Amino acid sequence: MASKQNIEEGTEFIPKFDDNGLITAVAQDAETGQILMVAYMNRQALDLTIQTGYATYFSRARQKLWKKGQESGHLQKVEQILVDCDQDCLVLKVTVDAGQCHVGYQSCFYRALNKSSDKKLEFKAEKVYNPKEIYKKQR
Amino acid sequence: MASKQNIEEGTEFIPKFDDNGLITAVAQDAETGQILMVAYMNRQALDLTIQTGYATYFSRARQKLWKKGQESGHLQKVEQILVDCDQDCLVLKVTVDAGQCHVGYQSCFYRALNKSSDKKLEFKAEKVYNPKEIYKKQR
Repeated sequence: MASKQNIEEGTEFIPKFDDNGLITAVAQDAETGQILMVAYMNRQALDLTIQTGYATYFSRARQKLWKKGQESGHLQKVEQILVDCDQDCLVLKVTVDAGQCHVGYQSCFYRALNKSSDKKLEFKAEKVYNPKEIYKKQR
Repeated sequence: MASKQNIEEGTEFIPKFDDNGLITAVAQDAETGQILMVAYMNRQALDLTIQTGYATYFSRARQKLWKKGQESGHLQKVEQILVDCDQDCLVLKVTVDAGQCHVGYQSCFYRALNKSSDKKLEFKAEKVYNPKEIYKKQR
């Protein structure tokens, strides 16, 4: 087993998957810095992402590999993969050419908590595509 | 139970905690866009974060509430809390005045995969403080 020192201060990539075999991955727009989405990878999804240069996740809802954009065409080209101190989380710096959220927004984070009421959300973005047109066959 | 429509397109904040009672939270520097760390919140941590305006997480390793910076003084002032489409992940836009990683870096994501070897990491940042000085009493 790798030491804390090796994990935190070393140059060996030792990704730590959780009890479900998953590691958290944050997709960040390489150009704008916007956080686009947060998803999960199993070992195979991570290997495919590294090998192909395009982000592949593991869908917890569907319990299967999920190449981002396979249905919509809204792929994520991976420019860089960063890993955190304890190697249980990844940041993918990606280049995208279309909205990344299945609801139609550029980012999944299109709403913010209203500061005057912690129960309410405010929309902070406009939709950039119509998901009904993209997903009409599948959903 | 809230409908998919309400969760994804509504203005009600209905954070979804996982089987362990946790929700993923990504801390992003509000000024630079740098992703600083990824951590987890239980309901109480989220409530404290909203009430106090400073990020409080739930430490999975220590199984207790963890006000970020309580030991180090390296607090995260929360400027905005964003929630994703299915409301199971948060982005905290924060203002910080010191390094956020316990290893000594500004961000926990101080290493990237080497493109020519998927087993090796490259350091991408310099330490911004000496953790031995900050944590000498506790660790």
